[in-house]
This record gives sequence, structure tokens and C-alpha cells, in this order.
Amino acid sequence: MIGATGTVGQRLVRRLHDHPWFELTTLAASSRSAGKAYGEATHWLLPTALPTSIAEMEVRDVHEVDDCDVVFSALGSTTAREIEPLLARRGPMVVSNASALRMHPRVPLLIPEVNPDHLAMLDHQDFGSGGIVTNPNCSTVGLVLSLKPLAEAFGIEAVQVTTLQAISGAGHPGVPSLDILGNTLPLIPGEEEKLETEPQKLLGGVVEGAFSPAVFSVSAQANRVPVVDGHLISVSVKLGREASVEEARSVIEDFRSPVADLHLPSAPRSPVVVADDDSRPQPKLDADREDGMAVTIGRIRSCPVFDLRYVALVHNTERGAAGAAVLNAELLAASGRLDRFTK
Amino acid sequence: MIGATGTVGQRLVRRLHDHPWFELTTLAASSRSAGKAYGEATHWLLPTALPTSIAEMEVRDVHEVDDCDVVFSALGSTTAREIEPLLARRGPMVVSNASALRMHPRVPLLIPEVNPDHLAMLDHQDFGSGGIVTNPNCSTVGLVLSLKPLAEAFGIEAVQVTTLQAISGAGHPGVPSLDILGNTLPLIPGEEEKLETEPQKLLGGVVEGAFSPAVFSVSAQANRVPVVDGHLISVSVKLGREASVEEARSVIEDFRSPVADLHLPSAPRSPVVVADDDSRPQPKLDADREDGMAVTIGRIRSCPVFDLRYVALVHNTERGAAGAAVLNAELLAASGRLDRFTK
Amino acid sequence: MIGATGTVGQRLVRRLHDHPWFELTTLAASSRSAGKAYGEATHWLLPTALPTSIAEMEVRDVHEVDDCDVVFSALGSTTAREIEPLLARRGPMVVSNASALRMHPRVPLLIPEVNPDHLAMLDHQDFGSGGIVTNPNCSTVGLVLSLKPLAEAFGIEAVQVTTLQAISGAGHPGVPSLDILGNTLPLIPGEEEKLETEPQKLLGGVVEGAFSPAVFSVSAQANRVPVVDGHLISVSVKLGREASVEEARSVIEDFRSPVADLHLPSAPRSPVVVADDDSRPQPKLDADREDGMAVTIGRIRSCPVFDLRYVALVHNTERGAAGAAVLNAELLAASGRLDRFTK
Amino acid sequence: MIGATGTVGQRLVRRLHDHPWFELTTLAASSRSAGKAYGEATHWLLPTALPTSIAEMEVRDVHEVDDCDVVFSALGSTTAREIEPLLARRGPMVVSNASALRMHPRVPLLIPEVNPDHLAMLDHQDFGSGGIVTNPNCSTVGLVLSLKPLAEAFGIEAVQVTTLQAISGAGHPGVPSLDILGNTLPLIPGEEEKLETEPQKLLGGVVEGAFSPAVFSVSAQANRVPVVDGHLISVSVKLGREASVEEARSVIEDFRSPVADLHLPSAPRSPVVVADDDSRPQPKLDADREDGMAVTIGRIRSCPVFDLRYVALVHNTERGAAGAAVLNAELLAASGRLDRFTK
Repeated sequence: MIGATGTVGQRLVRRLHDHPWFELTTLAASSRSAGKAYGEATHWLLPTALPTSIAEMEVRDVHEVDDCDVVFSALGSTTAREIEPLLARRGPMVVSNASALRMHPRVPLLIPEVNPDHLAMLDHQDFGSGGIVTNPNCSTVGLVLSLKPLAEAFGIEAVQVTTLQAISGAGHPGVPSLDILGNTLPLIPGEEEKLETEPQKLLGGVVEGAFSPAVFSVSAQANRVPVVDGHLISVSVKLGREASVEEARSVIEDFRSPVADLHLPSAPRSPVVVADDDSRPQPKLDADREDGMAVTIGRIRSCPVFDLRYVALVHNTERGAAGAAVLNAELLAASGRLDRFTK
Repeated sequence: MIGATGTVGQRLVRRLHDHPWFELTTLAASSRSAGKAYGEATHWLLPTALPTSIAEMEVRDVHEVDDCDVVFSALGSTTAREIEPLLARRGPMVVSNASALRMHPRVPLLIPEVNPDHLAMLDHQDFGSGGIVTNPNCSTVGLVLSLKPLAEAFGIEAVQVTTLQAISGAGHPGVPSLDILGNTLPLIPGEEEKLETEPQKLLGGVVEGAFSPAVFSVSAQANRVPVVDGHLISVSVKLGREASVEEARSVIEDFRSPVADLHLPSAPRSPVVVADDDSRPQPKLDADREDGMAVTIGRIRSCPVFDLRYVALVHNTERGAAGAAVLNAELLAASGRLDRFTK
Repeated sequence: MIGATGTVGQRLVRRLHDHPWFELTTLAASSRSAGKAYGEATHWLLPTALPTSIAEMEVRDVHEVDDCDVVFSALGSTTAREIEPLLARRGPMVVSNASALRMHPRVPLLIPEVNPDHLAMLDHQDFGSGGIVTNPNCSTVGLVLSLKPLAEAFGIEAVQVTTLQAISGAGHPGVPSLDILGNTLPLIPGEEEKLETEPQKLLGGVVEGAFSPAVFSVSAQANRVPVVDGHLISVSVKLGREASVEEARSVIEDFRSPVADLHLPSAPRSPVVVADDDSRPQPKLDADREDGMAVTIGRIRSCPVFDLRYVALVHNTERGAAGAAVLNAELLAASGRLDRFTK
Repeated sequence: MIGATGTVGQRLVRRLHDHPWFELTTLAASSRSAGKAYGEATHWLLPTALPTSIAEMEVRDVHEVDDCDVVFSALGSTTAREIEPLLARRGPMVVSNASALRMHPRVPLLIPEVNPDHLAMLDHQDFGSGGIVTNPNCSTVGLVLSLKPLAEAFGIEAVQVTTLQAISGAGHPGVPSLDILGNTLPLIPGEEEKLETEPQKLLGGVVEGAFSPAVFSVSAQANRVPVVDGHLISVSVKLGREASVEEARSVIEDFRSPVADLHLPSAPRSPVVVADDDSRPQPKLDADREDGMAVTIGRIRSCPVFDLRYVALVHNTERGAAGAAVLNAELLAASGRLDRFTK
């Protein structure tokens, strides 16, 4: 794993320690941390204790990782853009949480329940014997998992989305407490652009060896709020064809993962859960649902301007980051894309 | 003043104590508080000390107020619907912050900088010798002050708005800390309906003795966030005719109150202020601007779905409640609508 | 269980659902909730979902509970003082979290790891065939578990303690958010008295059928802070005889529960855990240790005024309330005090 | 002013802009900020707007300041230890908020209301024609202002103090929000040492050209809490001779600044204010009292272990930092210690 000392790296550690399919062999980070024991190099922020065996692993320099089958990347975007292709060319499959290559014309931007067919693009990559797969921005995951059933059933023409995003999305040290305690911030640099471009790739297809993005527009307004984990997303959707609130609710409730039969270890039983109670979803009460992997949707109702409105909640550092990456790796494994390694 | 012991009542007390035009003669509240000294009946929440002269005033029962020229009402909606017409019929002008009569066909819903002409409807009221004027919902004030310049210059067809609302909007005890600390709530009962109906009345006109609401649709999604004062509002607007971001910014920056010449004591120099810094407005830094009476607007930019987007911030218990009511009373006074009293 | 709808009641429900020894047969609350389904009567605040089977149980009136072997009481103090003796006289063992009878001359105030011998006083109770056992105040549990090893090894002469207490201690709706967001409150009515009297009973003995309290004085200053769960306690101790910091740390680290051999299901492996890191304990990171049942101690150091200082953290609604009660009931069962029921 | 871009620097700017006695001529900071306009170099965090005239001032390098009469220093400790003596030797009086030289054997640690006689030590300094005066640690100011009347009337033998300290004390970016939101931290490095040594110097005298510290011991436990401004301090005091709570309250209430007749512009009317209400002081309601310069004391009561207990609140970045420094400079001016400059 590279970028192991950050907040997403810590959650990857938690998920990969004792994972039934993967074995955590290497922790790497910047040269500043290299050579230290992981327990010293990281400022562990999770309430579950850091396992001693992991705490004692020596952190390696991110440039020196080369003997893994799968490399999980929780690097920052700038470093990822340089390192991830280098690593992939050495052989392993890079499963990245970074934003650097998400919109790359041959790199799948992947949510297993949404677009598993995009894996086909791995055959068109030119990273030597390795490959790169990415997961979306944390808010995008929540938005797109909620849009997927609607897109299939009714089509989507336009989306207005406003986010209330948790501080863990900015990592550690991240947002200074003086800036956010009892306050909200109306700007998260770079966030809105991701929300306005990633959904079309995710909900599009693969045609003749190229991504064919879905055609609809997204307007995103991103806010930071004093919440630890869980992005709340207010959504208004203009559908491709008319649908009642009841129809919409039904297609969301009835949505079933296209890869449910693969029984991926980190997959939630229901990727989208509709809350009964109008006061839900709430970060504090719903973010951890199914170990942080289920998106909770509430307040599905009609919209005076568009067709449909609702609120979605996604655990930003699990379903929106660490869990997303692990689930992607599990899909790769179950799809035989890692077979050459395990031979 | 009636409803004097609540959070809005306290801010009315603060504004009316030493007001240059009005003298605070009576504090009234429910029978539970009647007979007590104000200092005992209220749980004073403002950092500025409660003046001793006010603390010692005896609270009267809200039903027994009858010798005032202007009655400020910070009652809850149910009580207001019953009491305010009764009081008005006894003679005084009732200046209400309650939602009960805002949409009444002969009661002005008033923002002095937006629709001072609506005062003409006072001539068509049937509350005996008295009258009733209301101010809008706290979020509506912020939204409509920001829309007014755009409506005048370009017309408005549709608005999508998502609010991040402060806890003071729910009064005291209001929102339990267990519900909101480190959390956000996706539902504020009744709030969205107000945001979706009040703007059209405010931005409409008075035609032949009746309100003629503006024709556009509003979709509102209201969230509660752990902020003390200041509602942050994400807005997307579909304009009546095309306009560049620069044009839009100019008409907002150049907006001048139509009643600026009246020099109302509580009027801000600029009712809408455009923030330079993309990270603004923020409740903590901007809500108190001009004693809480200026709405701050930031991040004016184009919208991939509609035409224009921006963020507005309104001090919910000042510009959105107590200050709004006092400003309305000042407009009444300056317009000669209280003259009979002062003779 | 009585008082089932409050925050402690909810945590009791969580602990007793699927408990290996106890079966949850009855949920009771005030007449206001009686007759409703539990899922409707309670405002469920835990992130773990309320089990459907529990949600559908009908809440009974607290006065009508009579066919249980053990009654867990999460009542408020006033009601508890009336109801608990009544219930006990009908036969069951009442395991109470309420403060009402904690200082009663024949009711054990019990922490299994501290004073299991106090159960002997059950033989001297006069509640008919039933009995009453109580657990201490939430802060007292944390304080006394940390004092116990010191008291045994060195004796205790005086204790100065200042608490930083979480809002969950006040229940729901409890502390209004307007009072505590970005604030601290220097008064928690009734709290300091409990901290100043309960420790002596807990650390005392039973002599000739009567409690013989330990002799030392406690000065407590209690503050409310904007934390959800976990009371942090600053302690200065004057020991009975001199001891080095290292000695003190050793006796705390080496402390072993006197009832460890009973393997009570809710007992933590270590009732007190010493944190290595000087920045610990912290509510967010340490309160949930061992399902909220371990007290974490940190910053053990000498005191310029007394002998020893340290910081202790207790999960106030688990180790300090619901978990405390369940653990007490488990001790009763393992001690044969519930045998007549299970025959 | 040096160290002008930090949080204390900003508050110094606010206080010195339009100060009746001082003119703000120079803003200096580290070489990183030097050459920039102040408005760009600082991340302005105060709700009151940064005056344009100040925003446009060019920030100078801290090493190049030499033409001021008084230099206010808000430097960090390490830099202060090097720079402040250098600056003083060039001629000006350095009024420092830094901790570096507070315990220096010839540098006054000064609170005008507590130990104005310590200024005499300026005659014994060896910083060339200049001099250095410091103000205490933010918590120390609150503690010592509350102890001063008690020390005078009854003497003090020992003090136990636990603090709940605001995040602004750590500056910006300071405490990461992930560490403190919904949490408390039991360690503030270096803080307790200051609280345990500064009070004795402050409450001591000057004898034969040397400081003669008061003899009593202090035990301090410092915690960080999610509050923006205002340190709350729980105090237990062992007095030199017996005194009733009423006597103690009286001497505190009757305390009058020994330099009240100098009418220093930043001096509060009452340096210590006793709150009537047992639920006070609270940071949110009381920190700003008298522009942040009054310490509020509440809950004065007897102590089961020592003699007296109470809670004190100090605005840490005003009375505990910026306001403290300005008040010290005002005392210097009023005492004629700056006369040579104004000739």
C-alpha cells in the first residue's frame, strides 16, 4: 500500500488487516516516513486500535515498492500522477483512490455496483504488464450510487447537487479547528469539478475500446461542515422521462448490485438503503451502516423545479475512499484480473 | 413586545432598548411567564448583558397588551394566528416575525429594501384601526435580498436552493445537542414550504388592491448544521434572460435600497455585500456584518445546469427575524403609517 | 427493563438483546409511552440499528412490571425512589442505574471489580423477597476504578477531581445545543455531591452487616463539554503513604479484577488500561475501548501539591451506566444471587 | 509590531488601530511574509473587518524593525528568545506576549492590576537603552487575577487548577479539527509548567533589585476543549488563614486595581467580576465581557479538601495575550517609562 500514513491509508490498513483475500505485505509512504515503524510514522486516528503487527512494520519509500500483486494507492493527486503509472509499469495492478487518473481515457473509474463492465478497458491500457483502476471522489460515489437506479429506469437529464462534507475528507491535519468549529465553509477547492465530471463517465458505457460518457449536466455546490465522517448530499434530478415519487422510490429500493453473485467480501448487502424516517439520513446515525459501505437515501419527494429530490449520505472515507478501493480490488480478483499473480 | 422571552424576543429587546425612535414599554409572553420579572422569565442567551432596567420589567400576559402603538410579535405561529389579529383590532400596528399571517391576502410580507410598495395593502386590511405587517422566514430574507437585483435586471424563472441553517433558528431549548453535535439534520419541518412560497409574494407587486405574486418556481432543501448564528444558502438561478457572471455580479454590487433616503436606523449601508474571497461568506466571519443586517454573497459563478450560482449568508435571528421586524417598524414610521399614534 | 426509552435504556436494550445469560422480556416506561411499540416510543439514538423484534415490543407502564426475575432500572431519580422498592417487594432483583438509593444504608453501590463483597448486604435488605443493587454515578465509576489499585497499595487521604463530562450524560433532549455548542458549562447540578460521597462507600467495607465507608475527602468540580460520549477526569491524589510514579503506574497496570475468574460476559479484560501516549486518553479515541467497559488512564505523574496526578476516561453511558448495570446483574447471577429464579 | 500575522498579532492590530496613545507604524513577521501586503500575508480570522489602511501596509522582516518606540511581540517562543533582546538593545521598549523571557531574572512578568511595582526591575535590565516587559501565559492571567485579592487578604498556601482551554490558544492552523471536534485533549505541551511557575513570580515582590517570588505550590492540569475563545479554569485554593466563603467573595468583589487612577485605555472597569448565576461563567457568554479584558469568577464555594473553590474565565487571546500586552504598554506609558521616546 502506498500513501499508508494518511487518514485513508489508515482505513485501508484496517480493512486489509485480516482481509480474507489479500495479505498486507508492504506499507509505503513519502521519504519523510520511510524507515520508521508504521506506528511511529502515522498519527493513528481510528478508535479501533492499530494492530501491533502492523504498527511494527517498517514503512518503505513509495518509490521502492515493486514486489506486490496489488498496490493500493492513497497518495495525494500530484504524487499519484507521477508514481502510479511508474508502479503499474513494474507489473502490479494499482488500485487508486487518487483523483489524478480518474478521467484518463483508458483508466476505469469504477464502482462495482455501477459499472463493472468498465473493467474491459484494462485490456486497452498501456502500463506494461500492470494496470490502473480508480475509484471516484467521495461525494461522487454517494451521488452516483443513488443516480444509478434512476438512470437505468428513467434516464437522467440534469442534476443539481449541494454537499455538506465532513472534515475527514480533508485528511489530517486538514481543516484547522479555528476555521470549522461552529462554522461552515462554502468552498472545497477542486471538489465541485469532480462532482460535475465523474458521474457521466461512471454512468456511461464502453464502446469500441473507449469510454462513452453519459450525457447529462451536473451542477455541484460543495460545503464543509463540522462533522467527522459522512457527506450529506442534497440532490434534485431532472429525469429523462416522467416518473412518480413512488416509482422512483421503488427502483431505488429494488436496486440490486449487478455483481451481487460474486459475493465480494466488502460489498454491502444493499448498496443503497432507503430510510423510512424523514429525519434521516444523518451522518452520526447512518454513515457507519454496513461498515460504512451502504449509501443511505431519504426524503425522496417531488421537486417544484425538476422532477425528483432526495438526500443521500455516504461514508466519505469508507464507501468514498478506502472501502471503495478495497471493493474495486475484490472485483478485480473475482473477475480473474489478478489471476496471473496468484498462479 | 409579545413573545419577549424567546431567542428572537431577546434580540428584539436588545435592538429596542435605546432605539432612537421607539420606546420599549411592555414585555409580554405566555401566562407561564406573566407576573415575573423579565430577567427571571427569560434564559438570556446573548453575550451582551441584559440591561438592568429591562431585567426588572414585569412580564405581562400576551392577552393583556393593549396600550402600545406598535406591537412587535415574536410569538410562535399557532399563538400568533390567534393573538395578532385580536391585538391589531384593539388599535396598534402589529409588526410580526411569526409565519402565521405571512401569506395572508391582505398582510404585507415586507423587506424594506425589496417591496416597500406592499405597505399600500395596509389600506385594504380589516383589522379595525390597527394593522399587521410581517417579515419573511429567516432563510427567505437571505434568498430574496440576493434575488432582488437579479429579478429586476434579468427576471427569474426558477431557483434551486439548499440551506445550511444555524441552530438558533430553532430557539431555546430548540435542537438537542445530542442530535446536532458533529451531525447535520436533513429536515427542518415547515421550512422548505416557506422558502418555496414567500419569495414569489415578496418579488411580486400590488395590483388593484391585491398581491400579484411573481411567477417562478423555487425548490428548497433545508438542512440543520452545528452553527450558532447564520444561515448559509447555496443558490442556482435560471434567469429570465441571459446574463454573464460579470453582469450579474455588477447588478448585485450596484444594488441600492429603494428606501435608502429614509435613513432607517437599522438599515445596513449595503443590504447585499459581495465578498471578494472565494472562501466566503462564512457564518463565523460574516454573519455579524453591519450588526447582522447585511446579507453577504460569494462565489458568484456560472451554473452548468441553470445560469448562475452563488452562496448567500444571512444572520437568521437578526436580518432574518428581530432586525427584520425592527426595520419594518422603522419603515412604517418613516412612511407615516404610525403618525396617528405620535400625534 | 424500566425507563427503557431514555438514552441509558437504549444502551441497556442494545446490551441485553442477545445477551448470553439474560432474556429481554419486558420494556416499561412512563404512562406516556405505555401501550406504544418501543420503536415509536423511543427516539433511537444509537448508530447500531434497533432490532425489529425489539422495536415491535409493546411498552408497558412502569407500575405494571411484575413477572421478571431481574429488573434493570434506568429511571430518573425521583421516580426510582418510589418505584424501585415497590418492584423489589414484588420479588425481582432490581438492578438500578438511578441515584436514588445509592447511599441507602442497606443497598449495595456496586462495581464488580471494586467491591463485590458488598453483595453481602443483600442479606440485610428488607425489600421482601426481592432486592436492590445500584451502580455508581458515571464519573464516580471512572474515578473509583482508577483509585482502587492505589487505595489497596498505598491508601488514599484526599482527592481533587475536575471532570469534563459528555452531553449524553444528560440524556435526550438533555442539553440544548444553543447552550453547549462551542461552549463549556461549569455546573452540572447534583453531580459534584455524588462524586464527593460515593467513592468512600465504594472503597469501604462491610462490617457487621453495615457499610463502613473509607475515610478520605473528595473535592469535585464538574463541567459539561461538547463531547458526545466519554467523561474525562483530571485527578490529584494525596496517598496514604509515599509512592513513586513508577510504583503507582505499576499497581494500576497490574490491577486485576477480583472477580476475573467468574468470566462475566460484559467484563472487560482489563478494567483499567494505562495509555502509553501522553496525549491520551481522549473521548473520541478511547471511550469505546472494550465495548466501552474499560477505563483508560494516562499522564500518570507526580503532583506539586499532592502526590500523584493522572487523567482518567470513562464511557459514561456504558461503563458509567448501562454496561455497569448489566455487569452488576452478571455478578449477581454468577454469585448465585439469582438462583431462586432460574430453578 | 512583530509576529503580526498570527492570531495574537491580528488582535494586536485590532487593538492598536485607532488606539488613543499608540500609532501602529510597522508590521513585521517572518521572512516568509516580508514584502507582502499585510492583507495577503495574514489569514484574517476576526469577524471585524481588517481596516484597508492596515491591509495595505507592507510586512517587514522581523529582523529589520528598528525605528519604533514600542515593539509589541507576538512571536513564538524560540524566535522571541533570539529576537527580543536584539531589538531591545537597539533602543525600543519590547512588550512581549512570548513565553521566552517571562521567567528571566530581570524581566518583569506584568499584570498592571497585580504587580505594577515590578516595573522597577526595568532599571536593572541590561538591554542597552531599551527594555523588555512580558505578560503571562493566557491561563495564568485568569488564575492570578482571581488569586490576587485572596493572596492579599488571606495568603495562599497551595492551588490545584484544571483548565478547559480554547483552541484559539494554539493559533492558526493550530489544532486540527479532526483532533478536537467532539473531543477533548488532556495535554497541552508546556502549558502546565507555566501555570505552576508564573503565579509565584507575579504574586511576589521586588526586593533589593531582584524578584522575590511568593511561596506557594500550584498543581495544574491543562485540557483542550472545542471552544473558540475563553479558557475556563477550575480552582481549589488552600488559604494562608481561614476565611469564610462570604469573606472570600467580598474581597474578590471589592478588589480594585492599584492603577485604576491611571485610567489606562484598555483597562476594564473591574478586572475581576463575580457572576451571580451558578451556571456562569461560560466562554460563549462571558469571555467578551469588557472587550475581553475582565475575568469572570463564579461558583465561589467551600472545598472539602482545601478551603475555597471557584471557576474563573479569561479571554485567552485578549486578556490572556493581545489585550494583556497593550495594557502593559499603556502602564509603561502612564508610568513615564516611554517618556524619552515622546520627547
